[in-house]
Amino acid sequence: MTTTYDERVDALARTVSNWGRWGPDDELGTLNLIDGEKRLQAAGCVRSGTVISLALELRPDQPQAPGSGRLNPQHVMTETGSDAAARGGVVGYSDDVLAMSIHAATHWDALSHVFHRGLMYNARPCTEVTSSGARFNDIRPVAGRLVTRGVLVDVARQLGVESLAPDHEVTVAELEAALAGQRVDLLSGDALLVRTGHLGRIAASGDWGAFTEADGRLPLEPGIGADFLPWLHEAGVAAIACDNWAVEHLGPSTGGRLPVHEVGIVHMGLVLGEVFQLDALAAACAADGRYDFLLAAGPLPVRGGVGGPVNPLAVR
Amino acid sequence: MTTTYDERVDALARTVSNWGRWGPDDELGTLNLIDGEKRLQAAGCVRSGTVISLALELRPDQPQAPGSGRLNPQHVMTETGSDAAARGGVVGYSDDVLAMSIHAATHWDALSHVFHRGLMYNARPCTEVTSSGARFNDIRPVAGRLVTRGVLVDVARQLGVESLAPDHEVTVAELEAALAGQRVDLLSGDALLVRTGHLGRIAASGDWGAFTEADGRLPLEPGIGADFLPWLHEAGVAAIACDNWAVEHLGPSTGGRLPVHEVGIVHMGLVLGEVFQLDALAAACAADGRYDFLLAAGPLPVRGGVGGPVNPLAVR
Amino acid sequence: MTTTYDERVDALARTVSNWGRWGPDDELGTLNLIDGEKRLQAAGCVRSGTVISLALELRPDQPQAPGSGRLNPQHVMTETGSDAAARGGVVGYSDDVLAMSIHAATHWDALSHVFHRGLMYNARPCTEVTSSGARFNDIRPVAGRLVTRGVLVDVARQLGVESLAPDHEVTVAELEAALAGQRVDLLSGDALLVRTGHLGRIAASGDWGAFTEADGRLPLEPGIGADFLPWLHEAGVAAIACDNWAVEHLGPSTGGRLPVHEVGIVHMGLVLGEVFQLDALAAACAADGRYDFLLAAGPLPVRGGVGGPVNPLAVR
Amino acid sequence: MTTTYDERVDALARTVSNWGRWGPDDELGTLNLIDGEKRLQAAGCVRSGTVISLALELRPDQPQAPGSGRLNPQHVMTETGSDAAARGGVVGYSDDVLAMSIHAATHWDALSHVFHRGLMYNARPCTEVTSSGARFNDIRPVAGRLVTRGVLVDVARQLGVESLAPDHEVTVAELEAALAGQRVDLLSGDALLVRTGHLGRIAASGDWGAFTEADGRLPLEPGIGADFLPWLHEAGVAAIACDNWAVEHLGPSTGGRLPVHEVGIVHMGLVLGEVFQLDALAAACAADGRYDFLLAAGPLPVRGGVGGPVNPLAVR
Repeated sequence: MTTTYDERVDALARTVSNWGRWGPDDELGTLNLIDGEKRLQAAGCVRSGTVISLALELRPDQPQAPGSGRLNPQHVMTETGSDAAARGGVVGYSDDVLAMSIHAATHWDALSHVFHRGLMYNARPCTEVTSSGARFNDIRPVAGRLVTRGVLVDVARQLGVESLAPDHEVTVAELEAALAGQRVDLLSGDALLVRTGHLGRIAASGDWGAFTEADGRLPLEPGIGADFLPWLHEAGVAAIACDNWAVEHLGPSTGGRLPVHEVGIVHMGLVLGEVFQLDALAAACAADGRYDFLLAAGPLPVRGGVGGPVNPLAVR
Repeated sequence: MTTTYDERVDALARTVSNWGRWGPDDELGTLNLIDGEKRLQAAGCVRSGTVISLALELRPDQPQAPGSGRLNPQHVMTETGSDAAARGGVVGYSDDVLAMSIHAATHWDALSHVFHRGLMYNARPCTEVTSSGARFNDIRPVAGRLVTRGVLVDVARQLGVESLAPDHEVTVAELEAALAGQRVDLLSGDALLVRTGHLGRIAASGDWGAFTEADGRLPLEPGIGADFLPWLHEAGVAAIACDNWAVEHLGPSTGGRLPVHEVGIVHMGLVLGEVFQLDALAAACAADGRYDFLLAAGPLPVRGGVGGPVNPLAVR
Repeated sequence: MTTTYDERVDALARTVSNWGRWGPDDELGTLNLIDGEKRLQAAGCVRSGTVISLALELRPDQPQAPGSGRLNPQHVMTETGSDAAARGGVVGYSDDVLAMSIHAATHWDALSHVFHRGLMYNARPCTEVTSSGARFNDIRPVAGRLVTRGVLVDVARQLGVESLAPDHEVTVAELEAALAGQRVDLLSGDALLVRTGHLGRIAASGDWGAFTEADGRLPLEPGIGADFLPWLHEAGVAAIACDNWAVEHLGPSTGGRLPVHEVGIVHMGLVLGEVFQLDALAAACAADGRYDFLLAAGPLPVRGGVGGPVNPLAVR
Repeated sequence: MTTTYDERVDALARTVSNWGRWGPDDELGTLNLIDGEKRLQAAGCVRSGTVISLALELRPDQPQAPGSGRLNPQHVMTETGSDAAARGGVVGYSDDVLAMSIHAATHWDALSHVFHRGLMYNARPCTEVTSSGARFNDIRPVAGRLVTRGVLVDVARQLGVESLAPDHEVTVAELEAALAGQRVDLLSGDALLVRTGHLGRIAASGDWGAFTEADGRLPLEPGIGADFLPWLHEAGVAAIACDNWAVEHLGPSTGGRLPVHEVGIVHMGLVLGEVFQLDALAAACAADGRYDFLLAAGPLPVRGGVGGPVNPLAVR
């Protein structure tokens, strides 16, 4: 007896659902798993006082490829030093404007970013997300909450490669082996950062057309699969971020569906971080063998935003 | 014998200049004063594990007033739940775009934001800031650096008012008295947050026209004065932020000049944070008497940006 | 026996409906009434060879007031002469970007701009207008069509005032009297331009807050009323434009409803032009007594646009 | 004895200069050659009453290629029919925003678009074009002026090809032969439209990377050469537009310089129209042998604009 994709997704959704778990008005989802104790633990992970930014530089030519439907960061000047020089005088100043798709570069998805069977997290109808933005589940609650202990799992390094092959779906067994290899525990309330090496590989190659969904085609990328969700649910992970386009593995076998989004964001209320640059952090972790740190990663509090740009900072 | 404003500014600039102090290629300015030890100290300030965001919500109707020349955050949707509902089907998603003047809401000024006598920080010509952005001193170096111990000085509360009068220039003596009253030390490498109550007062009144420079007029606002700069220089403050439009006091007596910008940004390389929302933090500090915390406030790393939007997080 | 507003609108809609009149696939509406003969007639109206632009200058501070929900034209430079001067060299160039709400300044409404009982012109469901734009009835068909004979009716002048009072609803009798007073015939296929003097009055006063819908309040403006629609239908008017915000009279008595939009755009397929600057044209017409001209007013062909910016040219 | 490129350009500039010709304050350049008589003549060219738009559809994926530095037209919705359907109720509306590089699609260059030896048209310093836009020679004067007789010269057809080869520089002799072949005279004050077939060829191929300057490389495109300028000067052409990216031929031999821009725009004050879609017009002209028409092509009056988007209408 076979089941369809949608039947499996529905079953998975029932298994990991957090709807109602933190009350009918909750908009934080798994971020509820972060508390004060957790952050004291995070502060205790700061041992050398170094900081590493996990944000991709904001520039107009990456990381979205033409046809992705997303606008790369556009930066325009409204006052310049050239103007000041031409004008003369003792003082001058410069000013600028930034325009970008919120999901173009390093960002967190809000819990209003994905819908399943007409609903978003905590049983709210998708029609609450209109041209005026998200009336519920927007990114603002995330902004003042996302400081916790972060754990990097460098799957690529543990598997002995610079980056995972594009068709590689990371398995739970691989992740557990990597955790063991790194000798670090994943604890409830942690933010889990999974390194595939994919973003660094694409940046080195310059082939951004292979990074994002372009011209209607889904990307082929290494990432986690749907079977991760019960495991993350059990582990009490508060947020997960990857150095790829969509956190989850995408390829021919997934047929254009994104189960981690459909079930993770919608039913678990799991906050996903995408296009995180993890290579510098991975190098630092490998150098001293410490894979946990304080992660301060509150996004910009965009009213109605279905995502939020962020400069995630790992303090270790 | 009298001196002109410009002569006084030049003398002040000589007193506090950091040009060359950290080498001819330096783009960090006073952020050099933050080191690993400092951040260990900052981590030690985390005692309850609570987080407070100091960012103003990003919305289209504040805080800039018409005529300020700056664009308030514009949020537009490129995919919605309404569309998903109209289209039908099992899954759907939403997406959005953000456009804003970088200096419109909560932000750090980059060291390329102000010029004095044709130069910016570390003797670089202002003509390095063109329509293509800042070739030097852009906001990127700040992005991975600005985690340190933060100290809130609640001048308004120490003076027994909800907010300082718009024509109040905070004096060094007032700040020192407030520090003493709060029983907290300001140390080298700290980020100093000065609360005037101004932003909260404006927000409560809804009169944003009184907050920003509008229609060519400078705002009237409480803030620090130029005599703060030698004191900040001596104290080794790494960055300063206020709950007003321009950090410094502006009013008829300043005649449209901004000495803290001209000397602080250009000659000291002092990083200024503007439109910080400090009221919730102040309430928390007043409640338990602890005025220091870990401040994680790395802005978005905008290539060529002469400022950077930021969601500053106080972890305490 | 009384009728409700909606019942009257439904009855009016039945009276003037053009659904199906030009086939089930039609997207032109009343622009179908313009043919080659009509344009020959329009060319015959060119007697002095003068041109008058009816477009409002595109600038960031008008005509929308804060709270209207529409973005005034924002113009930013991406290359400047200052940059060229700073760079030196023999040649240089400048470049720029324009961003605006399509309905912010002088524009035509597309037939996808308004919906009534879930439908737009020619019985198409409103759900064809998504975040991707209008799949039907967008502005493109208008772009290559809108050249015809224009007739200005200067109601303000005919009534002996500089501008109509804000609470003045222009009646059909007034319009007919004005036509007679101007000794000009309105013919099938014409574009009718109705001058109220309102835009000029607002511009002179600088009080743009009184011009547009702001902070949820509808404007109070002189304009035509719903009883115009059968008359326009009978006359075969191809398009109508006014020097106000919404063509139609808005005020307390209209209760926030816009019957000319609901019935005119949706059921008649009548193309409405808004924020047309008619004062210079009116002065020229008054000077020589000629009130007809060739109107060339094709908007920018925005794919999916529910309106189109236009520089309407009266050639006379 | 040889001359350098710059010496030849300087000599050419002296030959065709119009600086001062229409007074020291002139901002119209060659558009001064259009007068009322000219437009009466243009109206006389309307014989069938058909209209053809010469504008490229505004869409986000063309005609600029990534790396051109120009933003293709971005269209976003701020209210939709989906929203109206989700909300319910009798009436609804839609609204939208357009953002684009002014020079991205069909446009006229303003006389502030190019500088030569630090000056723009009529001896104004290039430093008058700052981040605030052009203080002189902006696009506004063009908006109410550009209605005249248009003449299409279909060079491709006259040479018996669908489109000119990318390395084809159109010669004056070819243009004169084409005029003769088409049996049409070019008169003072006319707008000259030169068809190369290039835009249509690129559109058919979908290879927009071959159309615009991308990644620092100039395009290879058919167009006119610098020797056209004395001829245009002599003929009294008021404006010239082509179905290519830059009006003029670009290729290895031009070495990245654009003499028609440097001399034509700066010294002649010649208004250039770029990315005009001429194929439908050419087909109509070929069908009935009439190559002149009324051209109504006033751009949007952007304050400070160094160019203007336009929907040029040929009425014939």
